[in-house]
Amino acid sequence: MINVEIISIGDELLIGQTINTNASWIGAKLAENGIKVSYVATISDTWEAITSALQEAQRRSQVVLITGGLGPTKDDITKQVLCAYFDTQLVLDQEVLSHVESFFIKRNRPMLEVNKMQAMVPEVSEVLFNEQGTAPGMWFEKDGTIFVSMPGVPYEMKYLVETHVIPRLTERFPVKKLVQRTYLTQGIGESFLAEKLTDWENGLRAEGLDLAYLPSPGMVKLRISSASGNQARVTFYGEELKKMIPVYLYGEEEETLPEVVGKLLKSNGETIGTVESCTGGSIMASLTSVSGSSDYVLGGFITYSNELKMKLAHVGSETLERFGAVSEETVLEMAAGGKRELGVDWSISVSGIAGPLGGTDDKPVGTVWIAIDGPDRKISRKFLFGTDRQRTVQMTVLTALNLLRCEILGINIEKKQD
Amino acid sequence: MINVEIISIGDELLIGQTINTNASWIGAKLAENGIKVSYVATISDTWEAITSALQEAQRRSQVVLITGGLGPTKDDITKQVLCAYFDTQLVLDQEVLSHVESFFIKRNRPMLEVNKMQAMVPEVSEVLFNEQGTAPGMWFEKDGTIFVSMPGVPYEMKYLVETHVIPRLTERFPVKKLVQRTYLTQGIGESFLAEKLTDWENGLRAEGLDLAYLPSPGMVKLRISSASGNQARVTFYGEELKKMIPVYLYGEEEETLPEVVGKLLKSNGETIGTVESCTGGSIMASLTSVSGSSDYVLGGFITYSNELKMKLAHVGSETLERFGAVSEETVLEMAAGGKRELGVDWSISVSGIAGPLGGTDDKPVGTVWIAIDGPDRKISRKFLFGTDRQRTVQMTVLTALNLLRCEILGINIEKKQD
Repeated sequence: MINVEIISIGDELLIGQTINTNASWIGAKLAENGIKVSYVATISDTWEAITSALQEAQRRSQVVLITGGLGPTKDDITKQVLCAYFDTQLVLDQEVLSHVESFFIKRNRPMLEVNKMQAMVPEVSEVLFNEQGTAPGMWFEKDGTIFVSMPGVPYEMKYLVETHVIPRLTERFPVKKLVQRTYLTQGIGESFLAEKLTDWENGLRAEGLDLAYLPSPGMVKLRISSASGNQARVTFYGEELKKMIPVYLYGEEEETLPEVVGKLLKSNGETIGTVESCTGGSIMASLTSVSGSSDYVLGGFITYSNELKMKLAHVGSETLERFGAVSEETVLEMAAGGKRELGVDWSISVSGIAGPLGGTDDKPVGTVWIAIDGPDRKISRKFLFGTDRQRTVQMTVLTALNLLRCEILGINIEKKQD
Repeated sequence: MINVEIISIGDELLIGQTINTNASWIGAKLAENGIKVSYVATISDTWEAITSALQEAQRRSQVVLITGGLGPTKDDITKQVLCAYFDTQLVLDQEVLSHVESFFIKRNRPMLEVNKMQAMVPEVSEVLFNEQGTAPGMWFEKDGTIFVSMPGVPYEMKYLVETHVIPRLTERFPVKKLVQRTYLTQGIGESFLAEKLTDWENGLRAEGLDLAYLPSPGMVKLRISSASGNQARVTFYGEELKKMIPVYLYGEEEETLPEVVGKLLKSNGETIGTVESCTGGSIMASLTSVSGSSDYVLGGFITYSNELKMKLAHVGSETLERFGAVSEETVLEMAAGGKRELGVDWSISVSGIAGPLGGTDDKPVGTVWIAIDGPDRKISRKFLFGTDRQRTVQMTVLTALNLLRCEILGINIEKKQD
């Protein structure tokens, strides 16, 4: 087992202006590949701090992943410190330079001297090409320790780790790959799920497999793993799981709900539109986050005001007066109006009280009505999502998409949700 | 200036199952009180890792704040390691014991033997009473270094830091409070900003103030700070900055663009709507993320298909044929149609190629047209946001909202954007 260490450089991390999500992302990614991070040092962007961090890391670890301190502005000195530490000098890398140049040409932006600087790399380092930005990754080796320097910008760092670092490390340090598969659920809390799955989980553990519950707002990921690499049993229990909770289990591994729903719509040759109030377009934003969604997404109405609910989705004024904007009657009329006006096969509508203000005794903050009007039938469901505005919107989007998935697949959902 | 170090104990932090928010919270809290954290060590829950972390910390720092590893479960060995390190033994603290007992009585839950263990504290340590939980904080001093051990449960740790640690540290090490203010910019890259601000930045640094660039997609935060607590000069340079880059500087501290735009619309008594194509409703989702936005947000059209661009926003079929969906002519007609049909004072429209597919030579992936149709005039701007779909949408939302801010304030933006 090798020691892998992360050095996160940046004062913004130390004073809490930025949370060190890079380190946890790297930790999780490496863990998936059977490599465990054993130490994370978060340090200041100074010559002394970086130098002593490199020295200590060399004592402790065989692999040292460094993030941050490679931006073009003058307060970034990491590259100079690396030169001193590895007793080398900055040299111009033509390949990187032309990449940086093309990067600016693509965005038709003028290239500055400071940007040219990014093509200067330590002579002894091996360049890890950064397709996502202008600061290259740099690979060093010294006295049996590997050092990799990467920019702190998350999507650039992630690109370098996935494309360069992990493939090289797993080749260099072959590990018995832990076999695991992640199953994704929506609409049921961790404890309810655990209760439903007790026998299944016991059986799985009795065979020496492991199970992890990974909750996030509105979702719980179930990760089945076999340290002994027993793919067959992991798959077996996964298939069992699918049969047990079809209402909640929407996908596997990296799938997202809009992707799953999109695949279904595409294969059915059906189209979708939305009529959104409290979500303000977030359901459609989620549906269109999938590349190629224009094959099945036509569009939608955002009817934030009652006037537009009436004008665009033809909700009856008497419906709004009698039952209110947040009611079963209103969302059903919104969905029907949207289906007709947008000319879609499937119409999703939502109306709720995102809060924190606007709640009443019978309609507290977090009350959300969702309706789906499809080719064969229409359904409506009521939910209560608590008092946090952002979270209620997020939960509503996930819940609406999972309802749609069930409707498309003809899976019946009992009216009472947990 | 004293060196303050945090030791975060827990494998869940290293494998990325939990993000180390405790460290950043402590960093921010201490910074507010003029104390700067200079190092964070995130380590494994093992005897060796904890011991060597304590030794290294002793070499480096005068204050060492330790979180985690104090839970009742048997795998938490921190307390034993602390006893060994400080050459002492666990003794029963009656006060803590009765607190723990009352804690369980209050919640009428049975108290287990493992809970009794939490009243055992190292003999040489001073107990920091934990009103929020059963694991007490512990204060040690050794060879001029202060060690504080706290539970990792965020609200318990926060209670101990605010009630015990900060008061003691600020009394022991009286410091000038660091004064800082953050200014938020959109629409200009870090390097371009740095170039624009060279003289201003040099002047600021010459006065002993400090400046940090904190980039995130589409935005750069500028943090001006004075270690000597010179509020007046920080404010002075902040005001200078506002005059220098009104097009880019949209807010301060924790403000968000939708909040800033919302305040302006509200105070003008004006309303807003959107006609969105490639953003799929994300602009409206951002606008409505602000509580109380129903005062000025009426709603919008999501016109993903050309048919709906024509039907809902009345874009001419010949416009679409001649110039295409992603064109100045189309977004201008979308904005005008939306303004009329939605009955709003301000209408934002966007049409672009989010990609990764669908690009052409003259309209590459990432090409986005934005138009704003307001009470007095209409503008349109073209942008090129690169090849990442999510990022292009995110950049488009921020850019559209900042354009709207400038239009409302009557700040003219040159047609050529960087």
